[in-house]
Amino acid sequence: VGGLDVSLGNVVAFAVTLAVSLALSKAIRFVLDEGVFSELRLPRGIPAAVSTTVQYGLVLLGFSWAVLASGMEMSRFSFLLGALGLGIGFGLQNVVNNFVSGLILLYERPIQVRDIVEVGTIAGEVTRIGVRSSTVRTFTGAEVIVPNATLISDAVTNWTLSDRRRRIDLGVGVAYGTAPQQVIDLLLAVVRGRAGVLDDPAPVALFLRFGESSMEFALRFWTADFDRWVLLASEVMVEVHASLGRAGIQIPFPQRDLHVRSLAPA
Amino acid sequence: VGGLDVSLGNVVAFAVTLAVSLALSKAIRFVLDEGVFSELRLPRGIPAAVSTTVQYGLVLLGFSWAVLASGMEMSRFSFLLGALGLGIGFGLQNVVNNFVSGLILLYERPIQVRDIVEVGTIAGEVTRIGVRSSTVRTFTGAEVIVPNATLISDAVTNWTLSDRRRRIDLGVGVAYGTAPQQVIDLLLAVVRGRAGVLDDPAPVALFLRFGESSMEFALRFWTADFDRWVLLASEVMVEVHASLGRAGIQIPFPQRDLHVRSLAPA
Amino acid sequence: VGGLDVSLGNVVAFAVTLAVSLALSKAIRFVLDEGVFSELRLPRGIPAAVSTTVQYGLVLLGFSWAVLASGMEMSRFSFLLGALGLGIGFGLQNVVNNFVSGLILLYERPIQVRDIVEVGTIAGEVTRIGVRSSTVRTFTGAEVIVPNATLISDAVTNWTLSDRRRRIDLGVGVAYGTAPQQVIDLLLAVVRGRAGVLDDPAPVALFLRFGESSMEFALRFWTADFDRWVLLASEVMVEVHASLGRAGIQIPFPQRDLHVRSLAPA
Amino acid sequence: VGGLDVSLGNVVAFAVTLAVSLALSKAIRFVLDEGVFSELRLPRGIPAAVSTTVQYGLVLLGFSWAVLASGMEMSRFSFLLGALGLGIGFGLQNVVNNFVSGLILLYERPIQVRDIVEVGTIAGEVTRIGVRSSTVRTFTGAEVIVPNATLISDAVTNWTLSDRRRRIDLGVGVAYGTAPQQVIDLLLAVVRGRAGVLDDPAPVALFLRFGESSMEFALRFWTADFDRWVLLASEVMVEVHASLGRAGIQIPFPQRDLHVRSLAPA
Amino acid sequence: VGGLDVSLGNVVAFAVTLAVSLALSKAIRFVLDEGVFSELRLPRGIPAAVSTTVQYGLVLLGFSWAVLASGMEMSRFSFLLGALGLGIGFGLQNVVNNFVSGLILLYERPIQVRDIVEVGTIAGEVTRIGVRSSTVRTFTGAEVIVPNATLISDAVTNWTLSDRRRRIDLGVGVAYGTAPQQVIDLLLAVVRGRAGVLDDPAPVALFLRFGESSMEFALRFWTADFDRWVLLASEVMVEVHASLGRAGIQIPFPQRDLHVRSLAPA
Amino acid sequence: VGGLDVSLGNVVAFAVTLAVSLALSKAIRFVLDEGVFSELRLPRGIPAAVSTTVQYGLVLLGFSWAVLASGMEMSRFSFLLGALGLGIGFGLQNVVNNFVSGLILLYERPIQVRDIVEVGTIAGEVTRIGVRSSTVRTFTGAEVIVPNATLISDAVTNWTLSDRRRRIDLGVGVAYGTAPQQVIDLLLAVVRGRAGVLDDPAPVALFLRFGESSMEFALRFWTADFDRWVLLASEVMVEVHASLGRAGIQIPFPQRDLHVRSLAPA
Amino acid sequence: VGGLDVSLGNVVAFAVTLAVSLALSKAIRFVLDEGVFSELRLPRGIPAAVSTTVQYGLVLLGFSWAVLASGMEMSRFSFLLGALGLGIGFGLQNVVNNFVSGLILLYERPIQVRDIVEVGTIAGEVTRIGVRSSTVRTFTGAEVIVPNATLISDAVTNWTLSDRRRRIDLGVGVAYGTAPQQVIDLLLAVVRGRAGVLDDPAPVALFLRFGESSMEFALRFWTADFDRWVLLASEVMVEVHASLGRAGIQIPFPQRDLHVRSLAPA
Repeated sequence: VGGLDVSLGNVVAFAVTLAVSLALSKAIRFVLDEGVFSELRLPRGIPAAVSTTVQYGLVLLGFSWAVLASGMEMSRFSFLLGALGLGIGFGLQNVVNNFVSGLILLYERPIQVRDIVEVGTIAGEVTRIGVRSSTVRTFTGAEVIVPNATLISDAVTNWTLSDRRRRIDLGVGVAYGTAPQQVIDLLLAVVRGRAGVLDDPAPVALFLRFGESSMEFALRFWTADFDRWVLLASEVMVEVHASLGRAGIQIPFPQRDLHVRSLAPA
Repeated sequence: VGGLDVSLGNVVAFAVTLAVSLALSKAIRFVLDEGVFSELRLPRGIPAAVSTTVQYGLVLLGFSWAVLASGMEMSRFSFLLGALGLGIGFGLQNVVNNFVSGLILLYERPIQVRDIVEVGTIAGEVTRIGVRSSTVRTFTGAEVIVPNATLISDAVTNWTLSDRRRRIDLGVGVAYGTAPQQVIDLLLAVVRGRAGVLDDPAPVALFLRFGESSMEFALRFWTADFDRWVLLASEVMVEVHASLGRAGIQIPFPQRDLHVRSLAPA
Repeated sequence: VGGLDVSLGNVVAFAVTLAVSLALSKAIRFVLDEGVFSELRLPRGIPAAVSTTVQYGLVLLGFSWAVLASGMEMSRFSFLLGALGLGIGFGLQNVVNNFVSGLILLYERPIQVRDIVEVGTIAGEVTRIGVRSSTVRTFTGAEVIVPNATLISDAVTNWTLSDRRRRIDLGVGVAYGTAPQQVIDLLLAVVRGRAGVLDDPAPVALFLRFGESSMEFALRFWTADFDRWVLLASEVMVEVHASLGRAGIQIPFPQRDLHVRSLAPA
Repeated sequence: VGGLDVSLGNVVAFAVTLAVSLALSKAIRFVLDEGVFSELRLPRGIPAAVSTTVQYGLVLLGFSWAVLASGMEMSRFSFLLGALGLGIGFGLQNVVNNFVSGLILLYERPIQVRDIVEVGTIAGEVTRIGVRSSTVRTFTGAEVIVPNATLISDAVTNWTLSDRRRRIDLGVGVAYGTAPQQVIDLLLAVVRGRAGVLDDPAPVALFLRFGESSMEFALRFWTADFDRWVLLASEVMVEVHASLGRAGIQIPFPQRDLHVRSLAPA
Repeated sequence: VGGLDVSLGNVVAFAVTLAVSLALSKAIRFVLDEGVFSELRLPRGIPAAVSTTVQYGLVLLGFSWAVLASGMEMSRFSFLLGALGLGIGFGLQNVVNNFVSGLILLYERPIQVRDIVEVGTIAGEVTRIGVRSSTVRTFTGAEVIVPNATLISDAVTNWTLSDRRRRIDLGVGVAYGTAPQQVIDLLLAVVRGRAGVLDDPAPVALFLRFGESSMEFALRFWTADFDRWVLLASEVMVEVHASLGRAGIQIPFPQRDLHVRSLAPA
Repeated sequence: VGGLDVSLGNVVAFAVTLAVSLALSKAIRFVLDEGVFSELRLPRGIPAAVSTTVQYGLVLLGFSWAVLASGMEMSRFSFLLGALGLGIGFGLQNVVNNFVSGLILLYERPIQVRDIVEVGTIAGEVTRIGVRSSTVRTFTGAEVIVPNATLISDAVTNWTLSDRRRRIDLGVGVAYGTAPQQVIDLLLAVVRGRAGVLDDPAPVALFLRFGESSMEFALRFWTADFDRWVLLASEVMVEVHASLGRAGIQIPFPQRDLHVRSLAPA
Repeated sequence: VGGLDVSLGNVVAFAVTLAVSLALSKAIRFVLDEGVFSELRLPRGIPAAVSTTVQYGLVLLGFSWAVLASGMEMSRFSFLLGALGLGIGFGLQNVVNNFVSGLILLYERPIQVRDIVEVGTIAGEVTRIGVRSSTVRTFTGAEVIVPNATLISDAVTNWTLSDRRRRIDLGVGVAYGTAPQQVIDLLLAVVRGRAGVLDDPAPVALFLRFGESSMEFALRFWTADFDRWVLLASEVMVEVHASLGRAGIQIPFPQRDLHVRSLAPA
């Protein structure tokens, strides 16, 4: 930033070199895409990666040559290079964070391939643990690519870390007028000794709350068969329905008390 | 910041040089916009890009000349240059992050052109993967330009990464009084063996919950034909409707129990 | 921070010089605002910009002179200058980020003047793309000044990037008891061949969901005439209403089943 | 951090000097607050600002003297000074950001005094644009001090940047059974040619949606008289009410279809 | 980080010195808390502050002595000291930010003691403006300590900056069938000329919206008596109630139209 | 990063030294946990802290020895050490911030042990103010460990800073048709002169709003007895209930106006 | 960045060395995965960790050799190395933060293994406190891996820090017309002297609010038996239900007052 005597020739040299490089890089990319890769059978995405890399490598080289051709002294721009370095450094932090997180995933092993996990709003089965990112397959068939940093800096729920047991919670509301203790006994009877339901921890039935139209109960029991738990829950639901029916206990519709204050004649 | 003896002449020289440069840059831009580009047929947006670059390049040059003309010693302002460099460095981090993310997208390939993806609230088909940003075309016809950093640092849901299969979930509530097992059998019968519905993973029908006015069931089945899944779901809905009708199973309206406590005479 | 022998005279010299500078800068601003600018006809906001710049320039100069007058050695405060530089550098990052983003907007061209865009909660037409910020005119007539960094680091939805087509989605719920297939056929008949509705992609009508009081359908069709789409949607609504009426298909009010459990005598 | 031989005398000297300085600074503040400022008539807040500045200036000086008195070598603590400088630098970034933003507000002029703006949840009239912050007067009479950085880094909605026109949107739902086209014509008739309503852009009336109990329409028209728009909207509401009444079109109450399934005897 | 030959003696010397220092610091704190401060009458919190400071000062000294005793060369750990300095610098930024913000509060004076302010979810009267934080007393009697940085970097609503006037907004819904203009006139009549209600800005009554069960109106008027505004609003409510009653205008209950489609015999 | 001639021997030496260190550190931890600490009676958590510290200290030493054994020149890795230092520095900022905040808590004293505070969603009594974190005991018996930085950088509500008074707000809705002024008088009569209710600030009763089914009033009064305020509020509720009952004023159920438009024959 | 004369030979040497290294690293990984680890019985996840480490170590070495082979002078790229170092440093901050937080967890001991804690939306029992992360087992059987930084920088609720007591809050609404004091007495009678309910703090019953359809009361009592509190709450619910029944106090359904304004003839 000493003497800023930029001659017109320098500017032209810079512009011409840069323009030639850009044109050349585009041409070479075209040759690669149309001529070379269309002949070869490469995995999906590889041609694009290679030709883009080649093109931008050439652009970078061209820019360097253009700077040389313009006769500028690089030392003047050390402060710009510093700024650029700073920008690159900060720009890299996100990426480095993911790679370091990948190493931690490998050695700490909070999750493994085939684990059932939840992180944020994502739930599914881990299908791949990579160096930068991992893949979770959701129960609806989508694959979610999760950056490793997310798996390391967020709280990760793992349903299958030390065992495959889980608690199932079912809610049921019965009509006011039913004896609460009878409902509790009845709910427990459905799951006690049932195939797939664990004895320890024992099932629990609770009177939770006075609801608007019903008394709300919860049935909580454990299963060791993680893969079938939605089916088991559905089966227990069917059985609870039958059991309440046999005991004549009602699941009430929403209730309302009406006070008709005035009645216009028809 | 040693001797701050700024003479009036310096200030005037600085101001005049700067003013002339600004005027010149505006004039050249006007010539470019009105004279040159109106004659040429260039792609949309190119003229604006070129003339803006030229104008601001001239402003920058003019400012440098003005500083020289004012006779200030640059060394005094090294701390300001440092601050500027720092600011530029930080300001660049966002941009660098996007370019590095673009490289990772190219080599890791979590998404490809023509994949169906969801990222944040955006869902659609990837139509372009660029160096700084990529484009997702939503199902309603809008194009969303997503910075690559978002695609790398957020969790990206890809419906078509390793296969094009997906689960379809349909919900239906039937009247209390219906036998749950009958509903489950009926729902499964609709999708079993149906064209477009996969046998493996097998369809599942579940008793989910005691609802306020109905018992809630879910039918879950898989399809390999991702592009037609909304149509398939619609067809199955039509068939479930017909099938419930044939079996005389009701889909109830919202229910309410009334207790008329008082009744004013009409 | 070696010998901190601050004499009283220095402090007085510092305070006096600073006070004189502040007074002078205020006086000059007053002269500019009241004497000079009130005579000239300048664009709105220019006088305020100039007089504020002059005043604060003088304050800065006055502060420098005051420091000199107080006889303090600047070298002692290099660490304060460093801190200041750091603060300025960080404070500039936001601004630099916007300018760099402006350059990217110019060259990548994700949005252009006259495009219809959505970014965050803002939707409207781009009316200006500037170096630091751009302007979006909302459909209700407000102008939103959006920093370029927001347009570059957030996902930007552009409805008119590669074409001006869009999908229109209309929802309609019909009474239980209607044949679903008849509704689907009827909805498609309304839009097939209609002026402004595209044949490809073809219109689609779907049975979406068993609603509380109605079966919910959706009609999805494409138009190429982006500017008139709200009118087209309104016209199709009018036609769907007429068509359902002709076929005797009801759009039901909210339904409720009542069970009057007790009835107090009037 | 070489020889850490701190003698007891040094510690005492440090403590005594510091204590004396603290006491002195409190005494001087007391004299200023009670003796000097109570006699003078100064603008609200000025006395507090001056006496606080004087007190903390003295505390800082006292601390420096205490360090000198303790005989510590400053060079040992260069790393602490560096840390302090870093802390100050980072602490200043917020402030610098606001001042730089103030300069941009002055020169870019996205908002001006007397403009009607919205930024985040704040809406009102700009009453002051300052160097660090600006003031917006809300329509309910509160004044909001908005940091300039917020006005520069957030999207700012300006209703009066290039003109004072705005669109007014009114919603109305009419009973099922009314002819949609008649409602549209009627709504347009109310605003066409009305004083204060612009002809271009022309008013538009739309059939928006099949509502639960009514068909929902929207009337959209433009006015150039920003200051009276709430009154204009209210007037048009009154007129739409009258007009619907004359045409015998009903604005329906919420509707419900009842199916009384069982009826207990009174 | 050259020769890492750590002898056992060094480690022991380090551990012993550190242990002795920790024990000593605990003992001195105990003497201060139990022996000295229990005799003196000091303001609440002062003893804890002094004894904690003394204890941790001694721990720091003990650690330094332990490092010396272990014979380690400090130069090896310059990189650790740098890291520590960096950590301290960053850790200080929050604190420095608050102090700088305190200075700005003093000189810019956006808020003053006794002002009624809102910042974020906090609303109340400013009772103290300090160097690091300020205190707002909420209307329910709690005191909120707000860091000054929050008052400077967030938008602060000040109800009493330039005057103590505010607008009061009251909403009222009247039955369909009432003439809108009559309601508007009636509402204005209640506040026009009333004590405490300003003539300029004049009160305004507006027809806002067609509600589900009522037509919604708003009455907006200004008062200069900020301290009594809740009482004034309550008085106007009482008067509006009386005035509507005299004019026979109804405030309707929620309305519903019923269509009894089927009726089970009792 | 000059000559990267890494011999196989170096790699082996590195690996062996590291492996031995890791094994040794595990063995020593085992001896400590099983042999030493099981004999001693130490406070809960102390054994784990000591044995973990010893183990990781040994691992760090082992790693250093392994580096030496491998014969690598450390100077090559100065850039890695710098990166590590930077990482440590940034990693420490959170911790330093908490300690600095702890000092500020000690000297500014915005909260004290036994104060009733709210910060974010946490409400309870302060039971400990530590150097890094403080403890708040919620009213339901949980203890919340709050980092001091949260207490310093968030707004902290302190109910007992300068006094233990608070306002109690009770809401009540009465039937349309009641005279508003009578309700206001009645509410005030309940609290005026009541034990525990302060005379100054005086109690206030307000007509707040026209509700859907009732006119909504608020009763606001002050108490000095913070510990009993929930009980006092409950007592006043009981009294308001009795007082409204004596005056024959109704608290209405939700109201609805019905228009039966059609009635199917039974 | 002096002379950028890159010869073709250098580029080829670089590319070839890099390609060979990549191929070699893949081959060695294959041998490890298929040949070595399939023979050995190692804990889950260890083989993947080792082979990934070996592969990426080789890639890094290969890249270094390729750089040497290309004959580039490293000094030219010092600014890139600086950027990389910066990136690594920033990338490490998250990790270091977790380790430092782990040390604080060990020494401050805000949580211990077997404590019942809540942090953010996670609630459960602490089962492991590690150096980087800790594990919380939720009550439904999932294990959540929580980074230590989250446990240190967020507010952590610990139910079992100093005791295992907690308050249980039950809500009940009774019909208007019941005497409030009777309900309060009745609720207290249920819990007073009951096994598992503490006498101090004493149980409290409060009249909370006039609800829409009921008067709302709360019963608050303490238990020392944390593990059984859900069961105790359920038991008390059953008892409250019985007790209200014996006293003839009703828990009302939602109430509504109807005004039938018009009645169409059947």
